[in-house]
Amino acid sequence: MGSSGRGGGSGTAGDVLTGYLCDQATTFLRGLSLRGESEADADTLLRRSARRIAGVLHTYAPLTDPAWSEPLRAELGWLSATLGREPQYIERLARLLEALRRLSAPGAPEPVLAGADALGGALPEPPPPAANGSGPLALGAARAAALLERQLTLARTRAHSATLQAMGSSRFHGLADSIAVLASEVPLSPTADGPAAALLPPLATQAYRRLTDAADTLPLHRAANPYNAEAMRASLGAELTADLQDTPWHQVRILLRLSRYAAEVPESGAPGDPRFAEADLLLRRHREAAESAAAVAAAARTPRIAPATAYALGVLHADQRHEVEAARFAFSLVWRQAALPAQAGPRAR
Amino acid sequence: MGSSGRGGGSGTAGDVLTGYLCDQATTFLRGLSLRGESEADADTLLRRSARRIAGVLHTYAPLTDPAWSEPLRAELGWLSATLGREPQYIERLARLLEALRRLSAPGAPEPVLAGADALGGALPEPPPPAANGSGPLALGAARAAALLERQLTLARTRAHSATLQAMGSSRFHGLADSIAVLASEVPLSPTADGPAAALLPPLATQAYRRLTDAADTLPLHRAANPYNAEAMRASLGAELTADLQDTPWHQVRILLRLSRYAAEVPESGAPGDPRFAEADLLLRRHREAAESAAAVAAAARTPRIAPATAYALGVLHADQRHEVEAARFAFSLVWRQAALPAQAGPRAR
Repeated sequence: MGSSGRGGGSGTAGDVLTGYLCDQATTFLRGLSLRGESEADADTLLRRSARRIAGVLHTYAPLTDPAWSEPLRAELGWLSATLGREPQYIERLARLLEALRRLSAPGAPEPVLAGADALGGALPEPPPPAANGSGPLALGAARAAALLERQLTLARTRAHSATLQAMGSSRFHGLADSIAVLASEVPLSPTADGPAAALLPPLATQAYRRLTDAADTLPLHRAANPYNAEAMRASLGAELTADLQDTPWHQVRILLRLSRYAAEVPESGAPGDPRFAEADLLLRRHREAAESAAAVAAAARTPRIAPATAYALGVLHADQRHEVEAARFAFSLVWRQAALPAQAGPRAR
Repeated sequence: MGSSGRGGGSGTAGDVLTGYLCDQATTFLRGLSLRGESEADADTLLRRSARRIAGVLHTYAPLTDPAWSEPLRAELGWLSATLGREPQYIERLARLLEALRRLSAPGAPEPVLAGADALGGALPEPPPPAANGSGPLALGAARAAALLERQLTLARTRAHSATLQAMGSSRFHGLADSIAVLASEVPLSPTADGPAAALLPPLATQAYRRLTDAADTLPLHRAANPYNAEAMRASLGAELTADLQDTPWHQVRILLRLSRYAAEVPESGAPGDPRFAEADLLLRRHREAAESAAAVAAAARTPRIAPATAYALGVLHADQRHEVEAARFAFSLVWRQAALPAQAGPRAR
């Protein structure tokens, strides 16, 4: 990366921050030049660097000129959100089609017990299988898949157009110009003249503390108790409830990323929390499942769908809400297990 | 109970078995005479004793006259199944209405994090809640509840009539006469003249071995891994798959009851497995959830239901299949944890 070379071992906070941001700006500009060859690869680089620049500008805000950094952060947020939509729709459709396949797969039947018929008529037996009764419902799965494919492909196409439009806009050109400036010079605040070793760690620790405080407010104890059915509570109620329930988890995901990016800055002294990678993956899965469930509920509101289609969408919705719960369960294990040894600074509670 | 008094400490196997069966026959006859006052209490006694008589006749079959005991077991199976239907429909409706309430309950929203808005536009925020979009789906829950209430109340009424009809039938009078005979004398086989301490334990152990062997073939390792989504595999496929998947668990439930009843016979020497009570409860919950899910799927095949109703039924079906999975998870913990200390005799594997 070379950024540590620029900042040196005893530079000013401004030097170190400039080194990190210049590297990210260079990645951004490389992504931009790559767009003619591979849009997907280019957009990944653009999003990756845009998220890091915005995040680091947020965490280390006192070290930069706010009149410059705050509008830039807003523009980077706009770009990340715009570029993120198309890959999200692709991932969501793949996730939902895979789930439908799993839900309608016959699966390997369990071996039937030898000797179980020895019970004779002693006790009531389970009812005989009704082999042909579920035909219409199995058809519903195929129709639900077709409906979701239609709706999410349309959304993806629109997102693609929106990305193309955004990339050709004067708004984007203005942003790209700012990043080009950033690649050579970062508008710093007077504070940034102080030593990196004294200025960066408190800000990184503050970001980490925000994360641990927010994670502490999550119902981790409940989530660690499997099959608590909590994520299902909202399935048939107002969507508002699901959003209220999910939002704190989404916020922890955002705070976790901010903490990760903050720790990437050399001399930040930020703890390399071993939970970051897996926790980020699980919270990302949590969000994907929650948004997929919402997409299924939206599809179920399509007028004039067949009852069998609606039924399959209901099953799929519940399945995705259980994926939400499963992600919370896994996160709670990861987060609680390693919490004490990896904790930096005094714990909030 | 007094049965141990009749069998004594060193009686024949026939004496001990007669003591137990006479006690159960007396309970049966008490249930019969109670029917004028409280049908539900009476039927509970009748089913309870019918299941025990049939189960014990099965386990200790070599000790009784097969020409008498085999037809009696078949008749007891018929009676248990007939009497069991009405309470099952009552329980099923209560379970499904409670689940629908839980699924559409707004729930206590999680506290929104203070300071989370400090992130500004740095990173994409979760989408704003669409507060009014889910109205039709919430209506679906109410309609699904009404549909299930109608269908299961009708089934319950029919089961009640069938019970009344059965209780007035000559078939039932024949069975009651056999039980009245049983209350004073059990038709034994010549083998039953041997000592109880030598004859009963091998038969009880054989029943227990059948149970542990069957439980060993269950996918307990998979079930102990929460959120494995196994019980959902069949949700949208042919019902045959769910039945094939569930059947081995239902069989273990039956074998567990046989083992419990066998251990109730004095001098059976059968291990008082500490897992029996909880395992029985969990396998009963497993069956209830599986049959409730099947009832929901059946309701979803009602012609001309609204898509919102079908959607709610789909959510409910998946919820019940997750209850199936949750019961398997809990059973696997109970069964695997205590297996070694409580194990009687050499393990099959």
